[in-house]
Amino acid sequence: MNGLMQDWPLLCHKLLDHAAIQHGHREVVSRSVEGPIMRTTYAEIRQKALKIAQKLQREGYKPGDRVATLAWNTARHLESWYGIMGMGGVYHTLNPRLFPDQIAWIMNHAEDKALFVDLTFLPIVEKIADKVPSLKQVIVLTDAAHMPKTSLTNAVAYEEWLADADGDFRWLALDENAAAGMCYTSGTTGDPKGVLYSHRSNVLHAMIAALPDAMGVSSRDVILPVVPMFHANAWGLAQSSPMVGAKLVMPGAKLDGASIYELLNTEKVTFTAAVPTVWLMLLQFLEETGNKLPYLKKVVIGGSACPRAMTKKFQDAYGVEVIHAWGMTEMSPLGTLGTMKPETADLTGEARLDVQQKQGYTPFGVEMKVTDDENRELPWDGKTFGRLKVRGPAVASSYYGGAGKEQFDADGWFDTGDVAHIDENGYMEITDRAKDVIKSGGEWISTIALENLAVGHPDVAEAAAIGIAHPKWDERPLLVVVPKAGKSPTKDELLGFMQGKIAKWWLPDDVVLVKEIPHTATGKIQKTTLRDTFKDYKLPTA
Amino acid sequence: MNGLMQDWPLLCHKLLDHAAIQHGHREVVSRSVEGPIMRTTYAEIRQKALKIAQKLQREGYKPGDRVATLAWNTARHLESWYGIMGMGGVYHTLNPRLFPDQIAWIMNHAEDKALFVDLTFLPIVEKIADKVPSLKQVIVLTDAAHMPKTSLTNAVAYEEWLADADGDFRWLALDENAAAGMCYTSGTTGDPKGVLYSHRSNVLHAMIAALPDAMGVSSRDVILPVVPMFHANAWGLAQSSPMVGAKLVMPGAKLDGASIYELLNTEKVTFTAAVPTVWLMLLQFLEETGNKLPYLKKVVIGGSACPRAMTKKFQDAYGVEVIHAWGMTEMSPLGTLGTMKPETADLTGEARLDVQQKQGYTPFGVEMKVTDDENRELPWDGKTFGRLKVRGPAVASSYYGGAGKEQFDADGWFDTGDVAHIDENGYMEITDRAKDVIKSGGEWISTIALENLAVGHPDVAEAAAIGIAHPKWDERPLLVVVPKAGKSPTKDELLGFMQGKIAKWWLPDDVVLVKEIPHTATGKIQKTTLRDTFKDYKLPTA
Repeated sequence: MNGLMQDWPLLCHKLLDHAAIQHGHREVVSRSVEGPIMRTTYAEIRQKALKIAQKLQREGYKPGDRVATLAWNTARHLESWYGIMGMGGVYHTLNPRLFPDQIAWIMNHAEDKALFVDLTFLPIVEKIADKVPSLKQVIVLTDAAHMPKTSLTNAVAYEEWLADADGDFRWLALDENAAAGMCYTSGTTGDPKGVLYSHRSNVLHAMIAALPDAMGVSSRDVILPVVPMFHANAWGLAQSSPMVGAKLVMPGAKLDGASIYELLNTEKVTFTAAVPTVWLMLLQFLEETGNKLPYLKKVVIGGSACPRAMTKKFQDAYGVEVIHAWGMTEMSPLGTLGTMKPETADLTGEARLDVQQKQGYTPFGVEMKVTDDENRELPWDGKTFGRLKVRGPAVASSYYGGAGKEQFDADGWFDTGDVAHIDENGYMEITDRAKDVIKSGGEWISTIALENLAVGHPDVAEAAAIGIAHPKWDERPLLVVVPKAGKSPTKDELLGFMQGKIAKWWLPDDVVLVKEIPHTATGKIQKTTLRDTFKDYKLPTA
Repeated sequence: MNGLMQDWPLLCHKLLDHAAIQHGHREVVSRSVEGPIMRTTYAEIRQKALKIAQKLQREGYKPGDRVATLAWNTARHLESWYGIMGMGGVYHTLNPRLFPDQIAWIMNHAEDKALFVDLTFLPIVEKIADKVPSLKQVIVLTDAAHMPKTSLTNAVAYEEWLADADGDFRWLALDENAAAGMCYTSGTTGDPKGVLYSHRSNVLHAMIAALPDAMGVSSRDVILPVVPMFHANAWGLAQSSPMVGAKLVMPGAKLDGASIYELLNTEKVTFTAAVPTVWLMLLQFLEETGNKLPYLKKVVIGGSACPRAMTKKFQDAYGVEVIHAWGMTEMSPLGTLGTMKPETADLTGEARLDVQQKQGYTPFGVEMKVTDDENRELPWDGKTFGRLKVRGPAVASSYYGGAGKEQFDADGWFDTGDVAHIDENGYMEITDRAKDVIKSGGEWISTIALENLAVGHPDVAEAAAIGIAHPKWDERPLLVVVPKAGKSPTKDELLGFMQGKIAKWWLPDDVVLVKEIPHTATGKIQKTTLRDTFKDYKLPTA
């Protein structure tokens, strides 16, 4: 017997409808790519999105068509998303930090039919357009006055393109499981893999993300998503913000400390989110200028592990609460958030930082477990680490086109590829990537733990740990270190510094100083390259 | 094209699973019907619910079977709900304040097969059991030691009944649209009508209710739902609390000021919710004893309009934020909540109270509009009032058995039967019930406005306004007044008091003093009875 409740599908355009009705005058402020600060509202954004949907439909695009975006966080990018979804299309965010050839590969794999692109990235498109035969049209997110000369024959300025649309359009009545968005993961190995979000997963994720123990955002917040919309839905903020009716501040192309500070201050931002690199730039700017953050209340930090010193600095020096978070493109992306529970809420000082070093716990709607290699569940004791697996309504069930099948098991669990432990209170901490973990004598050594420890040495700028083949132990750790300018710490100094802080058998068998460590487009250490460089390295213990 | 996201149905038992996994040690404290305070946890409640599901299945109950509960808010009542739902059953809450014959009528209409009942209400069941042939089993929510002698042949003590269950049970894999719960509305006219909640509607409602601008509850809250579970799901708190992992404090049978204060104080409650009557008792107790509310942060007040003086008292004298709310059994029940928006957040004093007098605005997931009798949408101007209609995933699509079809239109809107206006900021205020509104010369007069105004007079204890037939104007208002003990205000005094505070043509044509005004089981004024009493009344203006 079914319940007798209304059939009200969870569709993304309802988020924007709600914002326009209940929070219609709320501002969306953008640092435009052309330069000036531009102001619009949710009511106007909805009207613009209706026009986009109308135009796309008129020009023959069909439900299910992938429409790519290669753009910074601005109101125009947001309008494009909702316009594309509102006519049944699938917004497909492209990461401009990838090599042009990778972008072309991804566009071909997705068979993108149109592209909304920022002025900044037009040169990339000019370079690859010929290689993407499915691409019919390029809409440049600017007005006629700022439209540059271009070699593209199918390009048009956004505002000009929209000029003949009146917005008299009804959002398509879609099934909530219809595809809404798409984002490729930029793995460190193999081809990129496409994640295909549905309307349902986006709406449920928006609700989960806004809950008090997750991001906890309200209509009275002013939200600055520094994390790009092309980086896993700006961590859901492009959906959660209209859902709760929060003022949005979009940073455009300028993510340096001075530019972000200017927006935080002039727009009275209360909530922001980004990767640690962005916050390093901001904190450095604040230290140099002596500026403070009187309006900012909360900062979500994820993408890679948030350094302890950064959490401490935000909280102690600036009175801003840090929420350490973990997620993946495959998870829409939120997985865990490090807010306080009654068990941890009263902790202060180092004990609180100990909790905040972990990536947090799951909100309702995300299930997680850690298992050994035989899929046996491991205890939540804060030390036993294993493969981290997740399940939920906003977690991918497969990749577009069927790649990566081995990451999904029969019970619906997705193997994140991360290695983690979970403590008695449910707080999870990533200890490694599964393919990076060092297997020494059947036991696992966390490379992240070694790296975090090594960078605590005053002479170390960056460190990477990799496993090197060993005749007795299978693998043993090698520590690769970039020293700070003018420094050259010795192996004995470094190992001496690490000794006593980790299990003795975790200590690296050797240390190598290098000038630089290779990184991926999203700033992660490229361990495959590193392992390749050192594949013939002979450890002194071998 | 569909998205490629996991099929993870929204099922109520997942709320409890999440609580047990992430907040397993969190307490659920109950004032037991037997007397003492009892303490359990979400992990234990889940274990108990598994046993209940196991027992029900063993004894032959099937998915879709209605299992009634006639009980106060306690951990045992909560366990019963989740146990019933976990084997596919439908918990059906009965309101003990109804007449026994009404309860029997409702049980027969629902064809309840089993009943979980508190000791307090056993006499009711003994009186009606013979009249409900579908009822196979009565489970008395107590242990063997407290089990009374009973005339019922099919009664068993709850703890004894569960003794042979080990809880080795798997929640049924249900469709999220499967029925989960049932509650009959106690209308002021006609037979009660059954609302049938689904797993999906309950879970979505739990998420909506917990959002920062709705109830805004977190794992660090201690929640005391004074509003009964038999009163529209305790306003969703029976689902939202485990979802966020908040400590729950269940008041059992004692809702008087002293008993509620004791729990607020000893359990350090931060969040509570109930109808105004309950808060009148508490505020009176506090005034008499000089006690304060140092832990309580927020109180949600709904069910009937919250008097302005009550909001003022809570906020000014006790530092507790009042959230005025409106909903209906048909809405799971939340419709609007009076939290602050940026447009209203800076208001203080009387201006803030003006906003808080309204019932608030819709969260995402509730749509509303006001229309005239021809279903034309009326403006949001804070004064034009009309029929209030709603839509959403947790709003009923029909009543059980098909009654009341006229309340549901083809576009999926539910006519609430309330009359309201909505202001420019989206705040809605109920001005009447549609069947109570007085139609004078084609224009509407709000009886609630007249009543609120009249009770402001120092000699008035209670007031009701009804329409009396009038040869020229169709209807004109009659004010029925219960004076305070020892007072007998005159018509001129009362009308003089009201004059200038409302439109002149709204002033009642006459005033009658009475000893009492009839009420329904849920405390609402029984206007049908009142209209019947005065059906031959002749207005002096007629």
